[in-house]
Amino acid sequence: MSTQITGRTSAYILAGGAGTRFWPFSRSLRPKPFLRLFGGRCMLDDTRHRLLAVLGDGAIHYVLGERLAPLLAELSSPPPAANILVEPAARNTLGAVLLATAHASLRGPDQIAVMLPADHYIPDEEAFAGDFLRALDAADGGAIVTLGIKPTCPDTAYGYIEASTHASGPHAVQVKRFVEKPDRKRAEEYLAKGDFYWNSGMYFFKVSHMLEELQRINSAFTAAVEELARCLKAGDRDALARCFLELPSISIDYAVIEKAKQILLIPASFGWSDVGAWDAVAALNGGAQKGHEALIDCNGSKVVSAEGGPFVAMLGVNDTLVISTGDAVLVLDKNRAQDVRKVVDLLRELGREDLL
Amino acid sequence: MSTQITGRTSAYILAGGAGTRFWPFSRSLRPKPFLRLFGGRCMLDDTRHRLLAVLGDGAIHYVLGERLAPLLAELSSPPPAANILVEPAARNTLGAVLLATAHASLRGPDQIAVMLPADHYIPDEEAFAGDFLRALDAADGGAIVTLGIKPTCPDTAYGYIEASTHASGPHAVQVKRFVEKPDRKRAEEYLAKGDFYWNSGMYFFKVSHMLEELQRINSAFTAAVEELARCLKAGDRDALARCFLELPSISIDYAVIEKAKQILLIPASFGWSDVGAWDAVAALNGGAQKGHEALIDCNGSKVVSAEGGPFVAMLGVNDTLVISTGDAVLVLDKNRAQDVRKVVDLLRELGREDLL
Repeated sequence: MSTQITGRTSAYILAGGAGTRFWPFSRSLRPKPFLRLFGGRCMLDDTRHRLLAVLGDGAIHYVLGERLAPLLAELSSPPPAANILVEPAARNTLGAVLLATAHASLRGPDQIAVMLPADHYIPDEEAFAGDFLRALDAADGGAIVTLGIKPTCPDTAYGYIEASTHASGPHAVQVKRFVEKPDRKRAEEYLAKGDFYWNSGMYFFKVSHMLEELQRINSAFTAAVEELARCLKAGDRDALARCFLELPSISIDYAVIEKAKQILLIPASFGWSDVGAWDAVAALNGGAQKGHEALIDCNGSKVVSAEGGPFVAMLGVNDTLVISTGDAVLVLDKNRAQDVRKVVDLLRELGREDLL
Repeated sequence: MSTQITGRTSAYILAGGAGTRFWPFSRSLRPKPFLRLFGGRCMLDDTRHRLLAVLGDGAIHYVLGERLAPLLAELSSPPPAANILVEPAARNTLGAVLLATAHASLRGPDQIAVMLPADHYIPDEEAFAGDFLRALDAADGGAIVTLGIKPTCPDTAYGYIEASTHASGPHAVQVKRFVEKPDRKRAEEYLAKGDFYWNSGMYFFKVSHMLEELQRINSAFTAAVEELARCLKAGDRDALARCFLELPSISIDYAVIEKAKQILLIPASFGWSDVGAWDAVAALNGGAQKGHEALIDCNGSKVVSAEGGPFVAMLGVNDTLVISTGDAVLVLDKNRAQDVRKVVDLLRELGREDLL
């Protein structure tokens, strides 16, 4: 049955995000999905490789802005133009998902579309593949399906999803509600209750089912999908851009998913991180160049080296991260990883566009 | 009178030291005197430039080991071979000073020899020149003369010199005794007493006077100077090496100066630092590449950049020094500057000779 479903599945890797939290690895023309944060492949290429266990390369699509499209040539197997969906502007995930849905709809109402963030960390490819197939199966039955991550700590940086029934094993459960990033106290409650999951941002749905949901939630979205599909088929880029630009810039979660009637969650069996900032990369032992450091009398400190970055030695420095690239090095307090944007802002003020 | 004296003065810059405390600027073939710790000139070239206010280039000599001699070609005006005295081996400052004394003796017993460390920080060239001339004058009268540095804090890293009388103005005073690096309590006493000076390691003496002192202290030293002079004159490098290798490897202070009968001290009128480690460089606002850093929410932290080193940004990190070169970056607790040798030792263990 799986082969039957995968044969009519289209995956869409959403790689449109920008973000300055990964300076000095990230630059204005090289956002997070294109960084080699963990070994020799960039995050996006890792995402693609995970999919290759279940899908052919031809079923994998990339949704991103025009100025980033050339970076796809760096993938270990560059995709053909037909697999690249260019967003005419940034319209958050709503724009990307509606464009992807339009694209999938051209293959028929039974096509299963899968939306995947481009820059999450999922080392266990085998476990991912199993959950992926289960999610396809559930989506084929007529539901929007997501993979929920079992919380390991009361993290306040993630959105949570409450299941309406207690999950046993890797079976789909009904979603009761989505909750925004909670404060510490609530996060601890969610963790204790046990029926809460982190929102991975991965969605599986049959085109026909999504169109039904959209029609109910906001018929303008159905109309947009139909118009985008028409433009894609006709190759009418100008009309596509006009339609796309009329979409509000909001997240698909907020605009659609949270309002959907039937959402199922499959508890993920794999380890996961959305790798929000440098502290996460350090905790996951990231870096593209290993053995290029020497630490003496340092507690809680880490070095993350890009290829071509200088050797880094640390002496007597605690809870400090050093991010090393060929032309710029960032030394930061481990607890300030969320503030790296301030460095980028300062560099812009200083007129150091060469480093941005 | 000054011109009369400077006309028969030979200065010897002692550049033989090694040291690993300035890694990653310093490497096995580039010790501290050849580092650009303050602006575009290396320490040795700065020392030479200070002398040019009072002496011709031809009167300035360099005493150092054979493998470092090629680095002299990097000076803003490379010295001729005749001004380079190569030490056949490392014999601490005793070897260097006796070799320099032998060299000066070839110009006659009235020649005034000046011994100068190659790697001290003295930004006020004019004040230095004035003190230098006063010291020559005092040495011409028959004494070993040193410039004493008025302590500004109870530093425990310097040797101290006690004057026998209270100095008033820049006039020479008798030296009562030399004291080794004191503990904190003693250093505070010395500072409070006021007749104590830091030992700058600069010595001025007439050849004839030094030979008298040596004869009294250890006649083997006189014999060594005479033999070294003979070898220099004859160009007999093998015999010179044999004689030099027989010298004990101890400091000139310990072997000779502290035992001399007549030592005068002139209180230096210039600011001074021996620049013992990275914390001193940072305190003196060193670095060869300025404006190549951005610090946000950092207290007591500093960046010292070599030319060609990466840009360094620091965020929320206190009391931390970052030393940046093209192929290696050192991040260290400000109070651990004395331990940089440990990093060098570790790199050797790791087989990273490419970084040493």
